Amino acid sequence: MAQTDPVRPGPTNSLVDVPGLQVGHAQLPGEGALSGTTVVLPGPDGVVAGVDVRGGGPGTRETDALDPRTLVERVHAVVLTGGSAYGLAAASGVADALGAAGRGFPVGRAPDEVVPVVPAAVVFDLGRGGRFAARPGAALGAEALAACTDTAPAEGVVGAGTGTLIGGLKGGVGAASAVLSDGTVVAALVVANAAGSAVDPATGELWGARHRHVDDVELPALPDDRSSLLAALQAAAAPPTLNTTIGVVATDAGLSVAQCAKLAAVGHDGLARAVRPVHGMTDGDTFFGLATTARPAPDLAALQEILTAGADCVTRAVVHAVLAARSVETPAGHWRAYRDLVG
Amino acid sequence: MAQTDPVRPGPTNSLVDVPGLQVGHAQLPGEGALSGTTVVLPGPDGVVAGVDVRGGGPGTRETDALDPRTLVERVHAVVLTGGSAYGLAAASGVADALGAAGRGFPVGRAPDEVVPVVPAAVVFDLGRGGRFAARPGAALGAEALAACTDTAPAEGVVGAGTGTLIGGLKGGVGAASAVLSDGTVVAALVVANAAGSAVDPATGELWGARHRHVDDVELPALPDDRSSLLAALQAAAAPPTLNTTIGVVATDAGLSVAQCAKLAAVGHDGLARAVRPVHGMTDGDTFFGLATTARPAPDLAALQEILTAGADCVTRAVVHAVLAARSVETPAGHWRAYRDLVG
Repeated sequence: MAQTDPVRPGPTNSLVDVPGLQVGHAQLPGEGALSGTTVVLPGPDGVVAGVDVRGGGPGTRETDALDPRTLVERVHAVVLTGGSAYGLAAASGVADALGAAGRGFPVGRAPDEVVPVVPAAVVFDLGRGGRFAARPGAALGAEALAACTDTAPAEGVVGAGTGTLIGGLKGGVGAASAVLSDGTVVAALVVANAAGSAVDPATGELWGARHRHVDDVELPALPDDRSSLLAALQAAAAPPTLNTTIGVVATDAGLSVAQCAKLAAVGHDGLARAVRPVHGMTDGDTFFGLATTARPAPDLAALQEILTAGADCVTRAVVHAVLAARSVETPAGHWRAYRDLVG
Repeated sequence: MAQTDPVRPGPTNSLVDVPGLQVGHAQLPGEGALSGTTVVLPGPDGVVAGVDVRGGGPGTRETDALDPRTLVERVHAVVLTGGSAYGLAAASGVADALGAAGRGFPVGRAPDEVVPVVPAAVVFDLGRGGRFAARPGAALGAEALAACTDTAPAEGVVGAGTGTLIGGLKGGVGAASAVLSDGTVVAALVVANAAGSAVDPATGELWGARHRHVDDVELPALPDDRSSLLAALQAAAAPPTLNTTIGVVATDAGLSVAQCAKLAAVGHDGLARAVRPVHGMTDGDTFFGLATTARPAPDLAALQEILTAGADCVTRAVVHAVLAARSVETPAGHWRAYRDLVG
């Protein structure tokens, strides 16, 4: 991105730069646990949502309700979680808590007669803490919901990113935002957990580095002699297991459900620029597109700008996830962070 | 269906005529509860599965994993449940129990390192027992799983059909099966809960009656003077609320995932013959197609026969659901059964 690019990151360079969106993380406590849940929470009226599932091994909930042909336009939270398909239980905890608070699609006369629409997607991280059965459930979902705030969410080994790996290195949560020339905000939050790598094995640089915004987090300086770095990267590269990168791409523009699905779809293009290979059979890569609709519906040119920024935010968010990750050692393994490798 | 039709119902005229499939029901106990869960359980190796979502208000789980482009071919249970989107928690209970028993997709070395693939779909029945918060959760899912047997499942007001309505009359669970001339078995189990009606308001006859097999349950004799019946039907017809018909269409043929999705799709044609209007914006109509693959892959002509029988089984299963339903009165309402209306 050239210095003359009119696009700038927002104040927090994260998902909460989209006014009205909050983020909360929670991690499983205790020995043998290395997993967690992240909740994206809109205001009480919800947020327009679409979805695009592009991975070969997805674990999802309530995605059919996001088809543009259905009645549902707005969702009341999005749950990103570890625990593979077991982790979908976290979304039930979020739905129960939202319903008890009267947040949801109204289906009766009483204020609490609502059904919250809570789409969810999972990443595979089972057993990485040493205990296979340590996985998010309904209580952890409710805890992540209760943790939601509009302050910049933590990145790295936190929330749904707690047990993530990316190309054998430690993965995590990352975020980025963009304020377009007309003031429209676009932002992404990703949980980076890919079979493929975020690092170019020929150079040791992050694939997504070339899409870095000049105001983004500084990239670490790489040594002139990279032979030991490249050897260490090669040693860290694990054979692909089950993985999955999931996330949210959001805007305050007035997008329709179908346009939100398109925003989610180009999020996968941003992912392709940050991770290689990507969208494999053992990745369940899934993005949700969200629009608070505080701003009016964009014209075609404005929509194109939003989509371009959405893809870039995902690439930048993956870079931020990798840079924010720290090395983790558990009874099940020792996963090094990119930052620790480059020294 | 003419008497000369070479297709005959199987021994139980239900889903368990497909060898290897079991069905279990569970209902919520207690005052104010009118909901339940039904589990379809294949053998330990699972069953090939596809899905087709055709309603305007679906509530589903793990359906993206049934896309033919994904890694997953076989599922380890299908959960049909009341409770609207809240009821998806029942599937988590089923997944936890299956995983603890070592049933699922293997993701590690130990026998219990598995992830069960448990797709689910829900029907809306909230508040029909009088208590809005009385809805299936993880424990009821586990109870329905534990109840699975290969004996003919109960029909009517049971399992996921407990709180169902169809066109203002009491709905329920229904099933039907067909043994094709070459011995292939096709069967359906439906949870009938539609905004539309199963009854032709001009005649008082069931829309699906013309697709009845000669060996199916007898239709009730209608009175010569139908004026009071038609008036009662009109009085029972409620304005459409949230509803949803869900079900399973299964065979022992060697279908692929994509062919299972096609089998689910024609199930919706069978539903269209039994319910009018159908697939509305307040229905979340969803069918799963299952193939145990005990028999070889069918050629084109055999596949066409399977699809035709699958659609017919759904129509007949809806008829059976309506005929098996009994009138129910709760603090929230009095819903009359078709059988009680026709006298």
